Amino acid sequence: MAYADTRFATRRRALAATLAGQRIDAMLVTRMIHVRYYSGFSGSNGAMVISKDLSVSIATDGRYTTQIAEEVPDIEADIARNSAVSLLREIEGPRRIGFEADAVTVSQLEKLQEACGDDVTLVPVSGVIEDQRLVKDNVELERLTAVAGIAVDAFNELLAADQIAPGRRERDVAADLEYHMRTLGSERPSFDTIVASGPNSSRPHHGAGDRVLERGDLVTVDFGAHRAGFNSDMTRTVVVGEADDFSREIYEVVARAQRAGVDAARAGTALVDVDSVCRDIITEAGYGEYFVHSTGHGIGLEVHEAPSASTVGKGRLAENMTLTIEPGIYVPGRGGVRIEDTVIITQGSPRVITAGVSKELLVV
Amino acid sequence: MAYADTRFATRRRALAATLAGQRIDAMLVTRMIHVRYYSGFSGSNGAMVISKDLSVSIATDGRYTTQIAEEVPDIEADIARNSAVSLLREIEGPRRIGFEADAVTVSQLEKLQEACGDDVTLVPVSGVIEDQRLVKDNVELERLTAVAGIAVDAFNELLAADQIAPGRRERDVAADLEYHMRTLGSERPSFDTIVASGPNSSRPHHGAGDRVLERGDLVTVDFGAHRAGFNSDMTRTVVVGEADDFSREIYEVVARAQRAGVDAARAGTALVDVDSVCRDIITEAGYGEYFVHSTGHGIGLEVHEAPSASTVGKGRLAENMTLTIEPGIYVPGRGGVRIEDTVIITQGSPRVITAGVSKELLVV
Repeated sequence: MAYADTRFATRRRALAATLAGQRIDAMLVTRMIHVRYYSGFSGSNGAMVISKDLSVSIATDGRYTTQIAEEVPDIEADIARNSAVSLLREIEGPRRIGFEADAVTVSQLEKLQEACGDDVTLVPVSGVIEDQRLVKDNVELERLTAVAGIAVDAFNELLAADQIAPGRRERDVAADLEYHMRTLGSERPSFDTIVASGPNSSRPHHGAGDRVLERGDLVTVDFGAHRAGFNSDMTRTVVVGEADDFSREIYEVVARAQRAGVDAARAGTALVDVDSVCRDIITEAGYGEYFVHSTGHGIGLEVHEAPSASTVGKGRLAENMTLTIEPGIYVPGRGGVRIEDTVIITQGSPRVITAGVSKELLVV
Repeated sequence: MAYADTRFATRRRALAATLAGQRIDAMLVTRMIHVRYYSGFSGSNGAMVISKDLSVSIATDGRYTTQIAEEVPDIEADIARNSAVSLLREIEGPRRIGFEADAVTVSQLEKLQEACGDDVTLVPVSGVIEDQRLVKDNVELERLTAVAGIAVDAFNELLAADQIAPGRRERDVAADLEYHMRTLGSERPSFDTIVASGPNSSRPHHGAGDRVLERGDLVTVDFGAHRAGFNSDMTRTVVVGEADDFSREIYEVVARAQRAGVDAARAGTALVDVDSVCRDIITEAGYGEYFVHSTGHGIGLEVHEAPSASTVGKGRLAENMTLTIEPGIYVPGRGGVRIEDTVIITQGSPRVITAGVSKELLVV
């Protein structure tokens, strides 16, 4: 466990350095993914206070007494119904305590304020932890690579078993794919699996329904695994039986755009440029109006997190950020194609952690 | 679709009546389950404004243009990146607009306030929609019954296929159960499936891991399906191979407590009394300290929603509320048992919508 302790302490130290620069004495952490990020505790309820002098307190409720002792052996936990309130009550002022303004609701803030002594001030903090999470450390990169590998292996098992086939319902395909991910170590799908067939493929956020796959269908499968707190996200579009000219054409355009996007995703590249590299290719091919979403997003503790590769994306890529590259074309009534990889940014070509499934047009 | 329209309009009318009583001119609805509740729109992003004069506006982003037109045919939707901000900008004052204080974050409120004209006041509203959701209408009861039926059928398929068996990992059992739910029509598990075997059964919130089931294990399986916006939740504990005296004893105590809880759950009963009926039986049997959570919760659009049957539960049951009854005993290092049904409250004995799986101690 010495290894784990070092990692969490390193992250807390980085947060404390930022806090000190913002005249904040301590940060109240209430989003559970952030409690996990700074402590390793994986329960569904709890809170932490991390001080600029690196002292830490943590709380959860009675269901997790054993679990928190095992997962966070170096910090003795408070056991309380309302963890955040319990931690705030212990603070003696005068102190300025940051809270997660992007997560704390208006009602919660009222309760937190009631729990504070007169000389404790709650200060809204936005984006600080999210900024810290942008660049992944080695343990995070390992876990992201592992969970992406589960999804890749599961999709290859689906293909090997001929489970995308005419006569099967979309939901049967989703059930098989999720089953493979589960047995390979996924704790749950990282989001609702999309199996969008035939006309449904023109709906970027179709789920997986009762439609039966037919010869000639485009089938877009967008899916991810979740393990040890980390998510994966990838998409492949295949064609059932045989591809008509329209399907081949839009597939080729999306594949070309997607390859160009992956090539462009390097440390130093502006996020808007990753988007425009993909979008320009699709627009030049005459399908610009049918690419109705952004090119990609970061992934880690959340399926969708910063950065954002879109027409309004801010900033530049840096080493060890993650990004999905997922251009698509969706022609209502005719069909659609999306191809998506997740990459880890480096100085050169990115490391594609979902490369284990071919991006050639696959006829199943 | 006339049927659907009536249902949503009826719900909006009930909200409007409450608003009028609180001097609020219109309610900004931003929780997506509530947008769905009042409109039928099932996308992942959007907002509504429902006025006390029953006029309604709704917005979502470009990914859902087609879907919202199909799902909400009677209201023309705004298409905008920030749905709530877009709707607020259209409001002309002087107006008092309620917002969901239990869902809107401190950061979001700031953005909403910026979007409002000088004579529009945002008023925090808490619990109003949740109170309306307490008592289910017929369509909700039908859907809850149907989604509970999916879980019941899936568990019976699991048993029929001997998929809870020595030599199998917890995660294999979870994979099979989730597969059955998927093929029976579940869109996703309503929460992370729990398969807690042997010593793990003494952890109420264990997931489903790599432990291999052995003869003599207690195995607690807590699981649910999700379909058409509604959730199910049920738990059964089985024993592998043969049950020792300890297992039989705690099973018998929990089963007795659970039956008593179900019997007590009737319109008019105080929530604390449902809890104490179960808790007293477990305490009298000498295991009170090992029943470490509350007895039950409502279920509907959320897996856990009001009411709460606990030592601090407030209020009384009413007809067409839902409640889980899920006492448990968890003896660290030895093992645990939980048995859970979901019931619909009536004037007499409740309707148990998860009754299709036996509650006798099942040796697999």
